[in-house]
Amino acid sequence: MSSNPENAPLSSLYSSSLSLVTDLYQLTMSYGYWKQGLQDREAVFHLYFRRPPFNGGYAVCAGLAYATDWLQNLRFSAEDLRYLASLRGSKNVPLFPQEFLDYLRDLRFTCDVDAIAEGTVVFANEPLMRIKGPLLQVQLLETALLTLVNFQTLIATKAARIREAAGDDQVLEFGLRRAQGFDGGLGASRAAYLGGVDGTSNVLAGLRFGIPVRGTHAHSWVMSFEQEEQAFEAYAAAFPDDSVFLVDTYDTLEGVRRAISVARRMRANGHELGGIRLDSGDLAYLSREARALLNEAGFPNTRIVASNDLDENLITSLKQQGAQIDTWGIGTKLVTAYDQPALGGVYKLAALRKADDSGWEYTVKISEQLAKTSIPGILQVRRYETEKGQPRADMLYNTAEPLPADLTIVDPVDPTRRRPIRSTQFRELLEPVFRQGKLVAELPTLQESRAKAQREVASLDPSIRRFLNPHVYPVGLEESLNTFRTNLILEKRPQRPA
Amino acid sequence: MSSNPENAPLSSLYSSSLSLVTDLYQLTMSYGYWKQGLQDREAVFHLYFRRPPFNGGYAVCAGLAYATDWLQNLRFSAEDLRYLASLRGSKNVPLFPQEFLDYLRDLRFTCDVDAIAEGTVVFANEPLMRIKGPLLQVQLLETALLTLVNFQTLIATKAARIREAAGDDQVLEFGLRRAQGFDGGLGASRAAYLGGVDGTSNVLAGLRFGIPVRGTHAHSWVMSFEQEEQAFEAYAAAFPDDSVFLVDTYDTLEGVRRAISVARRMRANGHELGGIRLDSGDLAYLSREARALLNEAGFPNTRIVASNDLDENLITSLKQQGAQIDTWGIGTKLVTAYDQPALGGVYKLAALRKADDSGWEYTVKISEQLAKTSIPGILQVRRYETEKGQPRADMLYNTAEPLPADLTIVDPVDPTRRRPIRSTQFRELLEPVFRQGKLVAELPTLQESRAKAQREVASLDPSIRRFLNPHVYPVGLEESLNTFRTNLILEKRPQRPA
Repeated sequence: MSSNPENAPLSSLYSSSLSLVTDLYQLTMSYGYWKQGLQDREAVFHLYFRRPPFNGGYAVCAGLAYATDWLQNLRFSAEDLRYLASLRGSKNVPLFPQEFLDYLRDLRFTCDVDAIAEGTVVFANEPLMRIKGPLLQVQLLETALLTLVNFQTLIATKAARIREAAGDDQVLEFGLRRAQGFDGGLGASRAAYLGGVDGTSNVLAGLRFGIPVRGTHAHSWVMSFEQEEQAFEAYAAAFPDDSVFLVDTYDTLEGVRRAISVARRMRANGHELGGIRLDSGDLAYLSREARALLNEAGFPNTRIVASNDLDENLITSLKQQGAQIDTWGIGTKLVTAYDQPALGGVYKLAALRKADDSGWEYTVKISEQLAKTSIPGILQVRRYETEKGQPRADMLYNTAEPLPADLTIVDPVDPTRRRPIRSTQFRELLEPVFRQGKLVAELPTLQESRAKAQREVASLDPSIRRFLNPHVYPVGLEESLNTFRTNLILEKRPQRPA
Repeated sequence: MSSNPENAPLSSLYSSSLSLVTDLYQLTMSYGYWKQGLQDREAVFHLYFRRPPFNGGYAVCAGLAYATDWLQNLRFSAEDLRYLASLRGSKNVPLFPQEFLDYLRDLRFTCDVDAIAEGTVVFANEPLMRIKGPLLQVQLLETALLTLVNFQTLIATKAARIREAAGDDQVLEFGLRRAQGFDGGLGASRAAYLGGVDGTSNVLAGLRFGIPVRGTHAHSWVMSFEQEEQAFEAYAAAFPDDSVFLVDTYDTLEGVRRAISVARRMRANGHELGGIRLDSGDLAYLSREARALLNEAGFPNTRIVASNDLDENLITSLKQQGAQIDTWGIGTKLVTAYDQPALGGVYKLAALRKADDSGWEYTVKISEQLAKTSIPGILQVRRYETEKGQPRADMLYNTAEPLPADLTIVDPVDPTRRRPIRSTQFRELLEPVFRQGKLVAELPTLQESRAKAQREVASLDPSIRRFLNPHVYPVGLEESLNTFRTNLILEKRPQRPA
């Protein structure tokens, strides 16, 4: 191994303390708070997004297992602190004084965290996490929590859409080679499984997360033999009951015919060809022709696997064209969320304990657009449901203030849209995860979160699940919270004469 | 730490052997080769892309340091092998027999690797890496090499474009919170620096790669104080010579005025305000107004930093509008390569040692499109240059065959486009990195690769660097290679009567 960490970028990363996975300004602000004596003032932040990804109607919440793991290991190592001590400002003086670094050395995570469970369907403006604790600490968590939750939620949502398009067909994630780094690939495999795919090609994801792994052979396998048929024979010799032949190395339908002749010999020896795979060309036409050839030859159960830059829209289109595809292999478009490769989650300060400890002072970030103005309070998300468990509307309310008897929700962007709440069946979505830095929740397994995601997505009205111009699910602010927020904005925003 | 690895996704990843960061089919093919006794047959693969990203005219090669690190640590751990032993096929028999797993346990990397240095400008169809060695091994490397080189090259190229748009202005990368996982963020910081940005907000990237780290404060800092001006004062108290005030929490130009009044008091104490930052609104208008306010107040050297979903096109547009911006903070669009989040690099078998050891047998993957048909041979990339070192044309040729005296290059997609080679000044781009598994190259430092990238991009004609419809740099196959390839395609492709 190289002694120069620059030339061992993987080894050095994978042996790092991960507490410096943050933006420098979290540390400069921390020092600023510490210097002002504000480090322990109690504060509340919410992590949320402003629009579901992919112009969709919902998102599948994910990332809490990562966030929990990171929070439990939050501690500045000696190496971290030496690095921070080495940073210099513009006048070549140390950026951070030693007393502050000593403070960081002794810092332990003591916050309360409430979060929405992985696999829950969530909507714009809903806090996926609520962090309450000493101002310095809650600020320090921002970047890592956003990185982890943004990416996991993004990919889980993409996978749920692909699952929706594929219906009951098998869906496999094949994207590692085009992923954004090793952890981009591994994280995508996890989130894709959580969101509804059936397996992955990523072997480490199989080892680490118990995700079923799948795969057959590449074009290079076929090219390594004189004849295509020889290549299929050799693969069948290695995996007599688990072969899927890739048929498009030279000519797809010729490849199907060769696969059939090998499949006949396999059958004579008591084995069945599992499937063939198409990876190029017109998948609608080729899959229909391949299905016909296989059926005529007596192989109606041999599956047809298709891949090649697929996503939910192409799957939908191929199905409309009568494609005969049993298994969808999805790579780049899923693991990078190609059409929207980032979820714009944000982390906003919503409340601060008053200096005289007499209660909460609420804060709001103003924007030219109401949609980008934050929501003050110590929020909870209450989901009202029908008797059958179908979500009807979500209400955001401030847990630190009493709720009125008659509830009405107000659209945070269009305050003329209101609906009174009549339903009495509801769930509170934010659940305790940490109390004073101690993990108090038993996290579900990945399998459990995946099952939850499938139930949750299925419970949504199809109009909210559709890809094009989905119906907007009602999420509102409890009326008194909305009034309070409006007044706070008016107070904070300068009133410039026209 | 949780005992369930599913619930410690970071900890378990970051303590993993990374040899299973691969697709299952690499292992099933490996077993197939081993079973056929083909594991040691010498083979050559090339790693290349078919189109530069972002509809651009070039790419900046990157990822070799990662790839080298991974290759040097390639070895299956006991845990890896236990996992592979646990995999079952459809009839519940082990997927891999124990003898094969023993073979993997003892496997050591013994390939020859030639690669193009990080920071070199590269074009479509040029092998960025050439791997020669036992068939089983070279096949096993595919996925990880693609993941690492695709992502690093993608982001380095994006950064070079952003650098091009920004000219001599300072460019900082701020994207961690929207990156695709921790390693997506860290890898992006490295590649962005290599490609030309000046610094990052990512503290771990500073520690690991020596990249300058930068950052000031967030909106939440301002919201934590009663008054915006108080917040600026407090920040200046912590960083009297390194303050940049974020001025758009409530009202941008009001914020600038408050920044100025704090800057006056700082100056009275012997300190200068470093800058202000704009993070929303019309950056062209606001930066001009802010510049005017700062200049009038006697702060012509206070920098204006701008951020908010910027990329090379927005920077260009803002500059055309006369924006007064000194430092560009680039986040999401850079670290995810938002407009094209994956480089479609491929890894193709190009030659196999003949079974009777009498020389090479060349291989080609046919496609309906000539552009997707692979190139046979044991290729080298020769770059012809002007006397001043400006690239004129690149020639791909087969190093295993003698070169004719008169050289002509032929466009691989349009064989009627040819040019004779008159120049005698050239460089061979593929350089030895590993010989029989031993590292034989001294890799440059990240700083050196970054300097190389800047020289290389600057040496390109501006018509190749432009964003919209760039000129296509000539890359051709040496004529005898082209003829050979054409004949090989004709031989391999079935001639179906019309």
